[in-house]
Amino acid sequence: MKRCLLLGCLLLFVFGFCVNSALAAEQSPPISEATQSCLDCHSEATPGIVAGWEKSAHARTTVARGLKRPELEQRVSAGDKAPEEFKNFAVGCAECHIGTVEHPDAFQHDEFMVHTVVSPRDCAQCHPKEVSQYAENIMSQAHGNLMNNPVYLDLVKQVAGRFKFKPSGLAHTPPLDMDLADSCLYCHGAKVEQKGVRKVVTDLGEFEFPVWSNWPNHGVGRINPDKSKGSCAACHSRHTFSIEMARKPATCSECHKGPDVPAYKVYEVSKHGNLYKSLGHKWNFKSVPWVAGKDYNAPTCAACHISLVTDPAGNVVAKRTHRMNDRLGNRLLGLIYAHSHPKSPDTSIIKNADNLPLPTTLSGQEAEKFLIGEKEKQKRREAMSGICLSCHASGWVEGHFARLDNTIDYTNQMVKASTQTLAKAWEKGQVKGLDQKDSMFNESLERLWAGQWLIYANNIRLAAAMAGADYGTFADGRWQLSNRLLEMQKRLDQGSTKK
Amino acid sequence: MKRCLLLGCLLLFVFGFCVNSALAAEQSPPISEATQSCLDCHSEATPGIVAGWEKSAHARTTVARGLKRPELEQRVSAGDKAPEEFKNFAVGCAECHIGTVEHPDAFQHDEFMVHTVVSPRDCAQCHPKEVSQYAENIMSQAHGNLMNNPVYLDLVKQVAGRFKFKPSGLAHTPPLDMDLADSCLYCHGAKVEQKGVRKVVTDLGEFEFPVWSNWPNHGVGRINPDKSKGSCAACHSRHTFSIEMARKPATCSECHKGPDVPAYKVYEVSKHGNLYKSLGHKWNFKSVPWVAGKDYNAPTCAACHISLVTDPAGNVVAKRTHRMNDRLGNRLLGLIYAHSHPKSPDTSIIKNADNLPLPTTLSGQEAEKFLIGEKEKQKRREAMSGICLSCHASGWVEGHFARLDNTIDYTNQMVKASTQTLAKAWEKGQVKGLDQKDSMFNESLERLWAGQWLIYANNIRLAAAMAGADYGTFADGRWQLSNRLLEMQKRLDQGSTKK
Amino acid sequence: MKRCLLLGCLLLFVFGFCVNSALAAEQSPPISEATQSCLDCHSEATPGIVAGWEKSAHARTTVARGLKRPELEQRVSAGDKAPEEFKNFAVGCAECHIGTVEHPDAFQHDEFMVHTVVSPRDCAQCHPKEVSQYAENIMSQAHGNLMNNPVYLDLVKQVAGRFKFKPSGLAHTPPLDMDLADSCLYCHGAKVEQKGVRKVVTDLGEFEFPVWSNWPNHGVGRINPDKSKGSCAACHSRHTFSIEMARKPATCSECHKGPDVPAYKVYEVSKHGNLYKSLGHKWNFKSVPWVAGKDYNAPTCAACHISLVTDPAGNVVAKRTHRMNDRLGNRLLGLIYAHSHPKSPDTSIIKNADNLPLPTTLSGQEAEKFLIGEKEKQKRREAMSGICLSCHASGWVEGHFARLDNTIDYTNQMVKASTQTLAKAWEKGQVKGLDQKDSMFNESLERLWAGQWLIYANNIRLAAAMAGADYGTFADGRWQLSNRLLEMQKRLDQGSTKK
Repeated sequence: MKRCLLLGCLLLFVFGFCVNSALAAEQSPPISEATQSCLDCHSEATPGIVAGWEKSAHARTTVARGLKRPELEQRVSAGDKAPEEFKNFAVGCAECHIGTVEHPDAFQHDEFMVHTVVSPRDCAQCHPKEVSQYAENIMSQAHGNLMNNPVYLDLVKQVAGRFKFKPSGLAHTPPLDMDLADSCLYCHGAKVEQKGVRKVVTDLGEFEFPVWSNWPNHGVGRINPDKSKGSCAACHSRHTFSIEMARKPATCSECHKGPDVPAYKVYEVSKHGNLYKSLGHKWNFKSVPWVAGKDYNAPTCAACHISLVTDPAGNVVAKRTHRMNDRLGNRLLGLIYAHSHPKSPDTSIIKNADNLPLPTTLSGQEAEKFLIGEKEKQKRREAMSGICLSCHASGWVEGHFARLDNTIDYTNQMVKASTQTLAKAWEKGQVKGLDQKDSMFNESLERLWAGQWLIYANNIRLAAAMAGADYGTFADGRWQLSNRLLEMQKRLDQGSTKK
Repeated sequence: MKRCLLLGCLLLFVFGFCVNSALAAEQSPPISEATQSCLDCHSEATPGIVAGWEKSAHARTTVARGLKRPELEQRVSAGDKAPEEFKNFAVGCAECHIGTVEHPDAFQHDEFMVHTVVSPRDCAQCHPKEVSQYAENIMSQAHGNLMNNPVYLDLVKQVAGRFKFKPSGLAHTPPLDMDLADSCLYCHGAKVEQKGVRKVVTDLGEFEFPVWSNWPNHGVGRINPDKSKGSCAACHSRHTFSIEMARKPATCSECHKGPDVPAYKVYEVSKHGNLYKSLGHKWNFKSVPWVAGKDYNAPTCAACHISLVTDPAGNVVAKRTHRMNDRLGNRLLGLIYAHSHPKSPDTSIIKNADNLPLPTTLSGQEAEKFLIGEKEKQKRREAMSGICLSCHASGWVEGHFARLDNTIDYTNQMVKASTQTLAKAWEKGQVKGLDQKDSMFNESLERLWAGQWLIYANNIRLAAAMAGADYGTFADGRWQLSNRLLEMQKRLDQGSTKK
Repeated sequence: MKRCLLLGCLLLFVFGFCVNSALAAEQSPPISEATQSCLDCHSEATPGIVAGWEKSAHARTTVARGLKRPELEQRVSAGDKAPEEFKNFAVGCAECHIGTVEHPDAFQHDEFMVHTVVSPRDCAQCHPKEVSQYAENIMSQAHGNLMNNPVYLDLVKQVAGRFKFKPSGLAHTPPLDMDLADSCLYCHGAKVEQKGVRKVVTDLGEFEFPVWSNWPNHGVGRINPDKSKGSCAACHSRHTFSIEMARKPATCSECHKGPDVPAYKVYEVSKHGNLYKSLGHKWNFKSVPWVAGKDYNAPTCAACHISLVTDPAGNVVAKRTHRMNDRLGNRLLGLIYAHSHPKSPDTSIIKNADNLPLPTTLSGQEAEKFLIGEKEKQKRREAMSGICLSCHASGWVEGHFARLDNTIDYTNQMVKASTQTLAKAWEKGQVKGLDQKDSMFNESLERLWAGQWLIYANNIRLAAAMAGADYGTFADGRWQLSNRLLEMQKRLDQGSTKK
């Protein structure tokens, strides 16, 4: 009997000890004086922010502790260069909003010079590798890629602009800054600049705060007040910065659900997405490295595109990357034809054979000089395939990618037929395009054409890439693509009849 | 050793005691004789209903116990007026389906006079404040606001009506009652009235039951057999009446997901929705009051529009309200132009300057007499902003609402251009509208116009209001709104050419 | 004190014992030599598959153990005929990929003859009842029902085919095999046949593998290399085969979310779907039988269409069936008119009065000989109603189905008006149809017509069947159906004017 008592108590204590020591190790790092000073007022002024932060890993550990972890478990990539100033404190308000980085946009707030907009430069204090990879990610240039490309800028202006009815027809004016911040630039990122100051009287006294243009914004290519590009908070949502959230597909859905970029919708109806929805509640979204098969049984967006993945034996399947095009040989989205991925994240520099800032001509010829070659494409496909091969045999994986290539070819062919139909209408003068010194996006037939690639071809390609079949068929897929091509032809014919 | 044993057992017992007493306090209130009588047969006849109820708070507590809670934790608003008859019993079948309220629609069922349709009057036995607030909520009038407004009734008839092909064209007949119950009135609420009786032979004997028109229905503005309006079960789903469910956004999605009212879809792609989807499984959806930051890290529909919210220190951030327009200065949905919120929940009383029962004229002029003024709008915006300010700085919140105002202006301008285009077509006789004594909704061009405000402008406004950008851009947003305006113009031009 | 100690330890031990013995009983069955041999390499070669399998019930139990369960808990339907060879082993790699079934498609792999594609014949070793029921399920014939029906095949070719622009108009070519595998046949099932062999060099040596056409594919009507039809993995996803997943609606969404078959979308906005989304995390998705009210409070797809459901007292509410049309009197989806369910799962044998392989004529007359009669329809509706009646009173259920019947009538009437409009255009020579020896699906007006039934009428019927109102109204519902009918009429009129 005594032994049994002993064993019972031992079990209890061992359990209790493990739990306690785990908590002790991770939960109560010292808080820097500056952060404490922030918390004193802000736990009252913005209690939700403080409570969110208290649930974060940032609040429960220190850089120094993080650096002691085994290499594969590292999340702090600064190594020796991590800021000594706060290495042994929780990563709190002051560490990011004051920190060690020079900020032209800082302002006096109580006794501190703080900056509102935390930029990738701040995050780079501890996570420099991720920040420098992200700078080579096409997403970091999302603002300029849209706004510095005359063709795209014209699309933006036509779509988000304002119209007035006049007896002579519709009069168009370009979108206001706020129109853009509420549409295209919500995701692409707006330009946040100081536009004066404002006084605010609160329970805690009177303050003077800067006024920011286009604020709030957390677009992936945001132009920050310190001139840097991007917002880590786009995916690592403030102020919990949860790795679980970043790895779950809902995060990506904020910008990748709409019909122009339906990655999330396709994922939802893929077998991967079904597994995630049905069984994901049992998976481990926090462990680093992320172990295929053990931690999760179907990939999320992060598993394929970003995360450090190993197999259960600890072999690295894929390295962590924040240059998310590392495993993507083709660019499927957003342009007239699917094409080899651009070399530079800044795509506004591209010129095609027709001297347009597009990666292909209107008839589909690639601007090779600006795009990656076959060898690099192959390398990227192999990187992606490596992840597939954790759970699928090689025949499966090869079949999948052969089908994707075929679908790229199909969509490019259909878009070409659509483009030629429109070109004929331009030629006949039914509508006016570039050759007539007019916008390509301001007439009904042109919009039918733009939808062919911007919406339907995109859906079909993504459905092939991620095995979510209906988005290749009836859900903004082949059904719509072929319907609208027939409609374009009919309009071309009708126009001809009239003449 | 002995101390260790002692401590171990103590821990075990303290834990066991806590669990047991919590269960004892909440789980087994006495069941009234009448309810027991119901349960005796219905645990066999409709076992799912009984099992659902057994999981409800109603089954595990009593009104008397509820009234003893501290003020902020109160859910029973009847206070002293709570029905003595069942104060100390579980809230079971009899308490709601027999209860203390006179019911003209009750019928003899075994030894009791029961009523099938539990109406807000029954709920008001214990929750009178919520019921009286709801009566001032525009949703409670959703049936009449549609069916008693000639303009809207025409839209209903055209959309849900039936067509036959005739050599001379399509012949329209108005929708049958069942057509409406299966479409518009599913959400708006149908009229439930007794239409005779029917005999049913069951394992438990023969019964005579009333036959109800339009049954089942749990629309928010249901006209009940007792003439009251609304159905609490629309959101507090029978028979579990889970506060967790009412607070989760899926509940609202039943009526607010479609393209005409896409609040849920917009929420899904907003950062708030992403947080909910990714991390919501860790949040506390049951605590009353609901503590911002502690219980949840991003608001659901309920947090912004209904719930009693406090900060972690216990300060009230927002009072509970079932008059859900309390924090809404503008009405964004369902009408031609966004406009100041109507004063009365009964909007069928409104007359605009053109004598139409609409809050604005077709050119956008507000029917001021029936709409709230600037001061009330400001008050409502401040009530909403208070919730935002728990987690966002004032500059963020002001920027957000400035952008919403701009987007309201943008959509109103675009809808006006669409309306003027249609008006021109009416004027030219290409289609026939009100001035030609014809419906505004029965021709193809008119449908294009109606879609502009009913679908696209709505999406864009909601996307601005809730920061779900793609619904303002490519997902039923600016892309579609401008495409269709160009299409309307083209049709207007084509029509002209023909003449 | 001693007694308290005693009790504490007793509790601990009883608890520990229960957990241990449950684990012991279910977790570590012996692994067959052949399976062990697979695992030896594949835990390295495809670690995700192995890790997924290790989480499966197959890995944690044996057929022999399963057969000992009480009748209602049985999942193995083979009884005495279960294969003696592996009855006492975990169901592992070899049991399914080698097994006891003759496989013409097996190939030498190390010391074994294995087959890549596990077919229903393999699953039938242990689950023969489910397999034979599924063979009578219309889904098992999904490949041939599409590809062997000339009308449907023409639709497939027009929708998934490729177009080239020619000065004379668009030139159509039929879809390639890969085009089909990536669209229609992803869900309907592709034909998987051996097309040669390929050599693969891996870390574990050189191998020769068969090359499969249309691989990967797990469509519900897949034509397997062994000539059998169907893929159990469509719903019971490899290699976890989780009953929880099969019962959750995300599984069905892979093929039933798109606008042509929007069952999942309708479910999502139904009260049932709202309950599942909000409270489903508390339900038991694993218990067999599945107890209405206790294990779940609102049905998922499986509860209504497949699962063995009992009430809390153990009475059978519905028997398990994999012939999923057992409870469906009408076929609502995918054809021109809703109609009585076909008798045979092979619908390509149907001939209507006009000698077309369709269950109705173009004017709606049923091909009675091939469709179930009133008595069978009634029987199926009663089977479905039985499930409803667990949680709803009879008046509710009858009201629901009366409304569905009315909506079937409404949609059929609207589709008829659309068909007659098109027929008029055919008659007038505006477009060319069957009578003109041309496709019914290759002109813009024909596509408008096809959308009326393939998309909009489908949505409206499913919305009625599953109470998800907006899909009957504004979300691909009555709004779109009536809009497009008005548009068809306008085009008919315009065409007339021109002549």
